Amino acid sequence: MEVDTVAELVAALPPGVVVTGAAEVEKYREDFARDGSAGVPLAVVRAETAGQVQQAVRWAAAHRTPVVPRGAGTGLSGGSSAVDGGITISLDRMRAIEIDPACQVAVVEPGALNVEVKRAAAEHGLWYPPDPSSFEICSIGGNLATNAGGLCCVKYGVTTDYVLGMDVVLADGTLVTLGGKQIKDVAGLSLLKLFVGSEGTLGIITRAILRLIPAQRAGATLVSSFPTMTAASRAVVAIRNRVRSSMLELMDNATINAVEDWRSHGLDRSTGALLIAQSDAHGASCEAEIDVIRRCCEEESATEVFTTTDADEADLFVSARRNAFMALEYRGSVLFEDVGVPVPLLPDLIDGMADISERCGVEIAVVAHAGDGNTHPIVVYDAADPASVTGARTAFDQVMALAIALGGTITGEHGVGRAKKGALPDQLGADVMALTRRVKDALDPDGILNPGAVL
Amino acid sequence: MEVDTVAELVAALPPGVVVTGAAEVEKYREDFARDGSAGVPLAVVRAETAGQVQQAVRWAAAHRTPVVPRGAGTGLSGGSSAVDGGITISLDRMRAIEIDPACQVAVVEPGALNVEVKRAAAEHGLWYPPDPSSFEICSIGGNLATNAGGLCCVKYGVTTDYVLGMDVVLADGTLVTLGGKQIKDVAGLSLLKLFVGSEGTLGIITRAILRLIPAQRAGATLVSSFPTMTAASRAVVAIRNRVRSSMLELMDNATINAVEDWRSHGLDRSTGALLIAQSDAHGASCEAEIDVIRRCCEEESATEVFTTTDADEADLFVSARRNAFMALEYRGSVLFEDVGVPVPLLPDLIDGMADISERCGVEIAVVAHAGDGNTHPIVVYDAADPASVTGARTAFDQVMALAIALGGTITGEHGVGRAKKGALPDQLGADVMALTRRVKDALDPDGILNPGAVL
Repeated sequence: MEVDTVAELVAALPPGVVVTGAAEVEKYREDFARDGSAGVPLAVVRAETAGQVQQAVRWAAAHRTPVVPRGAGTGLSGGSSAVDGGITISLDRMRAIEIDPACQVAVVEPGALNVEVKRAAAEHGLWYPPDPSSFEICSIGGNLATNAGGLCCVKYGVTTDYVLGMDVVLADGTLVTLGGKQIKDVAGLSLLKLFVGSEGTLGIITRAILRLIPAQRAGATLVSSFPTMTAASRAVVAIRNRVRSSMLELMDNATINAVEDWRSHGLDRSTGALLIAQSDAHGASCEAEIDVIRRCCEEESATEVFTTTDADEADLFVSARRNAFMALEYRGSVLFEDVGVPVPLLPDLIDGMADISERCGVEIAVVAHAGDGNTHPIVVYDAADPASVTGARTAFDQVMALAIALGGTITGEHGVGRAKKGALPDQLGADVMALTRRVKDALDPDGILNPGAVL
Repeated sequence: MEVDTVAELVAALPPGVVVTGAAEVEKYREDFARDGSAGVPLAVVRAETAGQVQQAVRWAAAHRTPVVPRGAGTGLSGGSSAVDGGITISLDRMRAIEIDPACQVAVVEPGALNVEVKRAAAEHGLWYPPDPSSFEICSIGGNLATNAGGLCCVKYGVTTDYVLGMDVVLADGTLVTLGGKQIKDVAGLSLLKLFVGSEGTLGIITRAILRLIPAQRAGATLVSSFPTMTAASRAVVAIRNRVRSSMLELMDNATINAVEDWRSHGLDRSTGALLIAQSDAHGASCEAEIDVIRRCCEEESATEVFTTTDADEADLFVSARRNAFMALEYRGSVLFEDVGVPVPLLPDLIDGMADISERCGVEIAVVAHAGDGNTHPIVVYDAADPASVTGARTAFDQVMALAIALGGTITGEHGVGRAKKGALPDQLGADVMALTRRVKDALDPDGILNPGAVL
């Protein structure tokens, strides 16, 4: 039966769109989380048009077959892990980008990479701010599905703040168009915002209208060394209370060393914590902001403060920060965390994670979008050692529990996916989970959209 | 039966909370739209706590009684018009404001006025940006219910961009807590954003956590006169493509004269259109931005350009703009529009509205948050003259149809309420209306929350 129905899907779409060969399908089974949850899909639909997405979803609806939408596969929570007996709809071929400079919007297909949108906008002197560390390899569709953040969101906001319109294929194959090129629009419910961050559980985004803003001038960068992450995070709290930096990132000693092991960036391996701050204010205001930041660092026992207005010099530090995940993966197996807390509680979160690391006997390296209170503790463990595996799983869970206890979140920007769904009820509580379920059931009554993710 | 059940409600709540006297109830029947849709409620619940809101909603759910939530009653779309046989829950007594300066958030009850939140934040050097023209008299609850905008949102965004957390009483009386003081949070569906702009149709917001940012320094103001609104709106398009002004407002000749009639602000009555722009960039950047704005105005045939860095002088013009609605109400009966289009289509919208005004034989005065493409055409008519009433109704509908034809929206910030719900399907289409209905039914299966509004 399954073979027959898949043949029906293959026949319904142009040659090459539906992939069923084991080797090809394998490439679409997991995302970067590699959380072990991925099954083997019946087929991968490499859609070229929204119409093909609709056809595939209609077929899936008719057969009650699970549908997993997938962008570039760079997710860190298993949100696009394939499902046994389901199909994966890959949007990686749908990557058209059209810039409307007069309206200051980009009209993009979901497979377009974040960096491609940025580049296209830059040709018109415009800027698409959201910049996940993975911006060179992640897709806009995935950014929308997780409401992705990044480094500049401390000043410029996250993905949802830039979404003006959207086409979405619903669970029955209907395509709806929400919003448009108008900046402000409160006609009807905020359905647009509901789909952002829904991780493929409510519909499949096939087109988005993204707001652009005039490109900002490059500003100045300050890099400060601290003896400890706790001291550095206290500096972050102080900075945030006084200026609106356009970047406020932290790396701990383990991350610095991992980055240096992977490729030398000239960082001091003995540094307890490195803070990277930027101001994109103009002229004298930029200098004034950098001065305030410097003072906040010095008041929190910074051991060295370096500033530059040279973009290449700055980029050395920023790229060290962006490469942290990749570098840490060279140290062993990893579990990616993404917990966040109200900013003043950052030192408590940092201290608590150090305790968990010690208790569980695993390394927890920490990089952080510190200005937003959003941290990425990365649990490094030895997959060949059962004790290490157990310690890592325990640490992963305890870090989420700690964030919840501090009034924070288990995920600031990666999404819940499959890796974190066990902890979601602990954060949201039974009533919000029930409310979530009601919305999910209303939009996807047969539960075919990304089953096993989030809920 | 009705009398008995209301007595049950009165008895369940502390003395004075439930108001049933005709004269008292009358004050809670209409909002500023005075759209004629308001019925007579059984009672008004002047809730003092979230618990009392829950009790009232539980009572309403048990009796399937309509519930209309209400803030300060300054809405312009009839969103809080009372319903015959229903109850109105007024939040005007719940106005606690607590500022957490370390987290840079305000924790507020819905009845707090926007201006009160701004003032409380300012005591800590912080700023709550969203600023509807009515900010001195409108409540935060209403701002949340309509996703209110204002003058500074051209640079700083609208209400939804500042909401981090919320307590909401659902249709069955359950209170759910969404979000928190953390800046970034993607755990679960974006339910928080779904409630923003839902105009009381999905739940009643009883507490909100609002993001604050460091107070911006006052900048410079530019006021420019134009022979026509079309020329002025072309200047707006040009300005927006080059700088991020912190205010970009327009008033037409009719509005200028209405404001002058009401109270002299020293505006030139012969001016075709007045543009008010501000830059809050710092130092030399501010001057540079104002220079760019000046050049854009001059290139679009500005007849006079005036700039000032004196806050009081600037305030004269800004308050003229803010007072436009009030001043126009002195000219006759009014219908408030709130249509928006993609910014480059502003001149087309302006021209089209002039045609409609002529065709329908009614005055349409226009003020606009022009930098966002959001306009407030105000239809002025003579309620005693049936032809004028008919003309006004026709003009009101045709302006919405025009905005939709230009790819825009029937409401940029006021909400659909009851006054505009007839046009909503024309904008959203049948599929989005059906989707909206599914979400509504999932959250409010008995349809007791603000029936007749939006849907």
